[in-house]
Amino acid sequence: MINKWPVIGVFDSGVGGLTVLRALRDQLPTVDFIYLGDTARVPYGTKTVASVTTYALQATRALLKRHVDYVVVACNTAASAALPRLQQEFSQTPIVGVIEPGARAACAASQTGRIGVIATESTIQAGAYTQMIKSFWPEAEVKSQACQLLVALAEEGWTEGPLVQEIVNHIIQPLKVNHGHEIDCLVLGCTHFPPFAQLIQNSVGSNITLVDSASTTAKLVAQQLKEQGLLSADDPTPGREVFLATDGRERFARVGSRFWHRAIEPQEIEIIDF
Amino acid sequence: MINKWPVIGVFDSGVGGLTVLRALRDQLPTVDFIYLGDTARVPYGTKTVASVTTYALQATRALLKRHVDYVVVACNTAASAALPRLQQEFSQTPIVGVIEPGARAACAASQTGRIGVIATESTIQAGAYTQMIKSFWPEAEVKSQACQLLVALAEEGWTEGPLVQEIVNHIIQPLKVNHGHEIDCLVLGCTHFPPFAQLIQNSVGSNITLVDSASTTAKLVAQQLKEQGLLSADDPTPGREVFLATDGRERFARVGSRFWHRAIEPQEIEIIDF
Repeated sequence: MINKWPVIGVFDSGVGGLTVLRALRDQLPTVDFIYLGDTARVPYGTKTVASVTTYALQATRALLKRHVDYVVVACNTAASAALPRLQQEFSQTPIVGVIEPGARAACAASQTGRIGVIATESTIQAGAYTQMIKSFWPEAEVKSQACQLLVALAEEGWTEGPLVQEIVNHIIQPLKVNHGHEIDCLVLGCTHFPPFAQLIQNSVGSNITLVDSASTTAKLVAQQLKEQGLLSADDPTPGREVFLATDGRERFARVGSRFWHRAIEPQEIEIIDF
Repeated sequence: MINKWPVIGVFDSGVGGLTVLRALRDQLPTVDFIYLGDTARVPYGTKTVASVTTYALQATRALLKRHVDYVVVACNTAASAALPRLQQEFSQTPIVGVIEPGARAACAASQTGRIGVIATESTIQAGAYTQMIKSFWPEAEVKSQACQLLVALAEEGWTEGPLVQEIVNHIIQPLKVNHGHEIDCLVLGCTHFPPFAQLIQNSVGSNITLVDSASTTAKLVAQQLKEQGLLSADDPTPGREVFLATDGRERFARVGSRFWHRAIEPQEIEIIDF
């Protein structure tokens, strides 16, 4: 089915990474993508670095078997736990994660160097954003907070309305209380968080800039492909997507459609094992 | 470490089954237990019957390797998906699940035969409680509803307070609107739900009897062991627990302590692979 070049493989713990695929599709309308959601093991955000690294190695191997030319680790938790290991193990293929572009965008958006990060439990514990931001801006102060519950809310489609606003306020509260007057930008460090962007903005106030790692990663990938001459400027045919998952066609289609903003049919999804 | 007889193995997708272990401990103070939480793959409730069956077979095999004499499938989703398969595959060992005792208790508690069930997405889709209740009471009408979000709330320790009451009300709302005046008892068909019992009772009203499959399962197991003469009446030494998990000692200890109602130390937990 896929016959263009390059083919970009995108993987995530589940369907949340479809927000990254959507951003990539906006930047790269003619490219073919293979998306892999590890729905048999979702979520990654509460699991250990060792387990997530094993899963990320397996997922990357599965994509490379499908002859992808480029891999995007859409899952913040997987990028945080395993990106250097993946780049070392599969050194023939360019592999990018969402942490570095998100960290760069935060450094560009912040005036004061006081940057907030919300992410899964595991990403926060690993300190991935803090280290990356400090590698670009050593004096930056990073205030981070795990917001694991937002993952389940997004999976349930609870992303709007007054009750969800209250829940978001409650989750964001400690970051606001401790550091609300200090930070001037806030990184949404999980693929499940963009659907809550407006509620999060309401909660932290309009003077704090939200940084979405999905769109910044997509821009970086598009720029790299252009710089490397890997995009045919005169290709007029729209790109296609192949969806792979490790479990549950029906749930992938139902929940995934919300993140992808287009209907996905269960029969479009191929179930693979690894 | 374990040297009594019988040894009871208890498994769950994660730490929620510790509510079942607690009920078993209350009934059987002198018995030794081996508890296995499949924390590398938690939650089961959003995964397919095929995947959950594979995991349940692996978990049971891991317990039998540790020479347990009796297995309790504490996870409603696993019992719903895989109990007959487990009983067939490991026919030498008594294996009980939480569905049948829960269904029996609901039939005993209901006057009208109109019974509500809340459980995970997968348990509801499989219709396990409905079938089991109808096998005891063919004229019973079972109204069921998936409440997947409660699993994540329990894992986060969000089990009390006005905001959680509002969330519970919102989740229970469709069951109340559609069937609230009909049902006279409600089965808590997931190990993660007992911590919300009071909030659920507030939501549905005091005239609806809540049935907790954890305590009814524990009573059944105790009764079976006594009937089979497997309990030494004059054993005065308190039983012990061994905790096994497939990932994340720290998280198991932290979140598990809330379900177990006693502190669990990370070093008490042995990580196994299957």
